[in-house]
Amino acid sequence: MSLLAIGSVAFDDVETPFGRRERALGGSATYFSLSASRFHPVRIVAVVGEDFGPDQMRVFEGRPIDLTGLSRVPGRSFHWQGAYGYDLNEARTLATHLNVFADFRPDLPAGYRTSPYLFLGNIDPVLQLEVVRQMAERPKWIALDTMNYWIRGARPALEKVLREVDILLVNDAEVRELTQEHSLLKAYRRIQAMGPGVLVVKRGEYGVALFTPEGHFAAPAYPLEDVFDPTGAGDTFAGGFLGYLAWIDRKDVTALKHATLVGSVMASFTVEQFSTERLEQITQDEVRNRLALFSDMIRVEDL
Amino acid sequence: MSLLAIGSVAFDDVETPFGRRERALGGSATYFSLSASRFHPVRIVAVVGEDFGPDQMRVFEGRPIDLTGLSRVPGRSFHWQGAYGYDLNEARTLATHLNVFADFRPDLPAGYRTSPYLFLGNIDPVLQLEVVRQMAERPKWIALDTMNYWIRGARPALEKVLREVDILLVNDAEVRELTQEHSLLKAYRRIQAMGPGVLVVKRGEYGVALFTPEGHFAAPAYPLEDVFDPTGAGDTFAGGFLGYLAWIDRKDVTALKHATLVGSVMASFTVEQFSTERLEQITQDEVRNRLALFSDMIRVEDL
Repeated sequence: MSLLAIGSVAFDDVETPFGRRERALGGSATYFSLSASRFHPVRIVAVVGEDFGPDQMRVFEGRPIDLTGLSRVPGRSFHWQGAYGYDLNEARTLATHLNVFADFRPDLPAGYRTSPYLFLGNIDPVLQLEVVRQMAERPKWIALDTMNYWIRGARPALEKVLREVDILLVNDAEVRELTQEHSLLKAYRRIQAMGPGVLVVKRGEYGVALFTPEGHFAAPAYPLEDVFDPTGAGDTFAGGFLGYLAWIDRKDVTALKHATLVGSVMASFTVEQFSTERLEQITQDEVRNRLALFSDMIRVEDL
Repeated sequence: MSLLAIGSVAFDDVETPFGRRERALGGSATYFSLSASRFHPVRIVAVVGEDFGPDQMRVFEGRPIDLTGLSRVPGRSFHWQGAYGYDLNEARTLATHLNVFADFRPDLPAGYRTSPYLFLGNIDPVLQLEVVRQMAERPKWIALDTMNYWIRGARPALEKVLREVDILLVNDAEVRELTQEHSLLKAYRRIQAMGPGVLVVKRGEYGVALFTPEGHFAAPAYPLEDVFDPTGAGDTFAGGFLGYLAWIDRKDVTALKHATLVGSVMASFTVEQFSTERLEQITQDEVRNRLALFSDMIRVEDL
């Protein structure tokens, strides 16, 4: 019983108004697995280069994260360089060096092909589809993240893979570009027609909107004194959200609402420090306490 | 027992991607009073010109809105011209003709000076302070709205009036400019030091964040199929929020959370049509139904 995740494992150079880090651990599969593995065992499919060494591997150790599918190949790892302005809502990408990621073709280890839960991180939809086709049996659910680059540049492949998907996780601009609808209610109906029954719209500091066949929901972001570095917040959210769903093995509206709170709380830790620094350190008690405070904060007595 | 509101009564020319209206009824006191008077009697202090006739007056009739303080003077009424792009989040102001509003000096009718609740709409803080000084006794609470124009151009007067204020209603950019803090939690503590114990941050399509001495809260916007014209949403929210607080005569955190939902639901009607068209027509049943749906949507069972 594992949650299979495909995505990037990378080095990030990040600059925010509060400081900078060079060659810090990053990548969607990194944040996702560190977050999801708090709730359910995770299997990663990704690729790194020869520059990815024991210091980086150590971060995954002692956690229920299966790295059988993490290939190490000649060359350098994926490297992203970005900067944030004072409002922290949008990263300015300074450089993207795909390196070993450029020739990445996922090849699932035999033991991965029967995973009951599948997360297709934000990569080329052609590769996302290849992963789906390599599964020996249909997972209980498939979740997918994507971005404007693929919506614009690879729409036919994206539409093909979306037909296989149950849960779509994107941001406001992405869902609007994908559906050509400004109203999220209307956008959700278009998404349903494309395949996914559940839509999760990530809105950064404004929280998350959730659309399900049983109704919709929205939660604010967990309020913080200081946001240091928003890199990885979306992937950490996805990890908490999907790790929780895998753990409870349900996806009714109550489970999805709870998953939204769990994902938001996990993301709140990530942004408090650079890279995975905070996410690596948190204890189960810290997660539990923040969840209790957050539930209490958004609770409203009947009017 | 009335809620006294000072603000503008105006004509608006509005253009959105969905149509346009010329010389439609607008102004902060207009939206505020139509919304608040659903919950509690309202008294308006404002000024209009000779172009403000029976067609406009009719909108206020048959509602618990006292117009004794609405002066009609020679000249033309305040006239705002604005346009919205497709994302509807921010108005582009094309022209502002203050007209009779330029020489407006509030002079409270004798009967107004003992109002138990006071809303100082977004006007020159010098005038807001004059209203406070004209009150015969201190209201139970004073609420205030302002904008960047006054934060930049009239900070000393604004700081003076804020010392008298219990509830501040502003948007994200305004609270950040006023406090020079990006984190809303930190901004709230600065606001508390300035005077207001309650901070309400209006975030348009992302809803509302509420900060109180007993804890904070955030609610999404009520989700709509179509937003036609966002003009007046903030003032309608303030009307619902403060009208409800006046009605129940409480301002503990539960009351403030409920007021947030009420304000959001009232605003959701305003934006569905141009000007006050929808706000004028809604029934108590429509308000009640939307409140029930909204409460249900944001309710989360204990984790």
